[in-house]
Amino acid sequence: MIRSETKLRVRYGETDQMGYAYYGVYAQYYEVGRVEAMRLLGFSYKDVEARGILMPVIEFSVNYKKPAFYDDEITIITFLKEKPTGIRIPFEYECRNAAGELLNTGKVTLVCIDKATNKMCKLPPWFLAAFDPFF
Amino acid sequence: MIRSETKLRVRYGETDQMGYAYYGVYAQYYEVGRVEAMRLLGFSYKDVEARGILMPVIEFSVNYKKPAFYDDEITIITFLKEKPTGIRIPFEYECRNAAGELLNTGKVTLVCIDKATNKMCKLPPWFLAAFDPFF
Amino acid sequence: MIRSETKLRVRYGETDQMGYAYYGVYAQYYEVGRVEAMRLLGFSYKDVEARGILMPVIEFSVNYKKPAFYDDEITIITFLKEKPTGIRIPFEYECRNAAGELLNTGKVTLVCIDKATNKMCKLPPWFLAAFDPFF
Amino acid sequence: MIRSETKLRVRYGETDQMGYAYYGVYAQYYEVGRVEAMRLLGFSYKDVEARGILMPVIEFSVNYKKPAFYDDEITIITFLKEKPTGIRIPFEYECRNAAGELLNTGKVTLVCIDKATNKMCKLPPWFLAAFDPFF
Repeated sequence: MIRSETKLRVRYGETDQMGYAYYGVYAQYYEVGRVEAMRLLGFSYKDVEARGILMPVIEFSVNYKKPAFYDDEITIITFLKEKPTGIRIPFEYECRNAAGELLNTGKVTLVCIDKATNKMCKLPPWFLAAFDPFF
Repeated sequence: MIRSETKLRVRYGETDQMGYAYYGVYAQYYEVGRVEAMRLLGFSYKDVEARGILMPVIEFSVNYKKPAFYDDEITIITFLKEKPTGIRIPFEYECRNAAGELLNTGKVTLVCIDKATNKMCKLPPWFLAAFDPFF
Repeated sequence: MIRSETKLRVRYGETDQMGYAYYGVYAQYYEVGRVEAMRLLGFSYKDVEARGILMPVIEFSVNYKKPAFYDDEITIITFLKEKPTGIRIPFEYECRNAAGELLNTGKVTLVCIDKATNKMCKLPPWFLAAFDPFF
Repeated sequence: MIRSETKLRVRYGETDQMGYAYYGVYAQYYEVGRVEAMRLLGFSYKDVEARGILMPVIEFSVNYKKPAFYDDEITIITFLKEKPTGIRIPFEYECRNAAGELLNTGKVTLVCIDKATNKMCKLPPWFLAAFDPFF
């Protein structure tokens, strides 16, 4: 399994008039989480694009339990529970506040697109090999 | 059933370096869609808050089929397929581009919170009555 | 002179916990305004990029007089007061609410970058010619 | 003088199709910078609001020299060069990339609003006193 923790603070511009971190901002928070999870593989998502692969999102879901508020320090815990073998990478998430309370859980599934052909493709061998130490 | 269509254009700041409308921006697009759907009830979401009710999101999901691009005109189709009776309002969505192609489908479930107590509550009678003509 | 008016509504996700449209959101609103102003020239900003020109912002300023609120209908008035002759296009802005009150004034200056060389360049003749009918 | 440095990374959702960090995102970056600068005073902006004061922005400007790119680590340097005495707090900014190159300079002026009356007011004595050690 890959498990990664990242901390960030809720920005003022990310709140809404309800005083909550806007429900849509977790797309960015989860993205920050998986970028850090990916660095554990030994390369960055930036490197992945430089090697000719795009990884758009095909599924995104969040279950909200409690809101986050302005200036709260949030921990994003990113999981990759199964070793990817095909074209998909399914990340799972937990967000917790500084008191350890569960704010939300979620899932983001990425697919592999070959930049040259603009078509879905299998994860290339160098990418798949990077998962080996974790599973 | 309630069914509402809203059009908007993808803004430059909503694209990402992949050239797609960022996957997280659909939280805002869906919100625009349900705000317009709610106006069909005879009041706005702004009115709802003014009457002491907040409606945060407790579930949000998107299935992405095709990307939207800068300056594309997108149609957001918002559905409320079952008459709400309790504390939840489950909106369903389709996004289509100008060619009518399905870009994504999604779901956003709102809950009813009493501003005075900050607790979940049943939809009040004036709110429930507004659904009658549609079901 | 070029003068263009565009209307948009403040989205919930664009408000902050002060209940105002977040001060940074006017970057997007002004961008929507100048995209519509540019269509008066007979092409879109999308066409401009397709013809090999990027137009990044080099100066951006806003003077805020009054806040905008959730669901307000805002009018963005975009001006190009002088005919561009070199590498810069200086847009000026007024934002007004539905009551006609002035919310803010601002300025955004774009420069012309040749995509092929990634260097600043003069506006090409086809672009300059498009300004003729307005000045 | 107050001088504060904060680091952050450009998120994927903050880039645009030009591959740059979107010009409007610096409103948020500068906000992150001044929130950290304010902590040097011994309280947070969150505390300020809790004590009945709102601090909206009345002036915002940026001069862009170079773009920032996805995953770049940016340093935001926030300055308060003169001791505030009235109702305004003028913050100045520099953004630099990891190579130390100047990306942009800017200015954000906040004003003091009394939450109870919703009118501009002088900075209260406890706020003014917090500046003493720095000037």
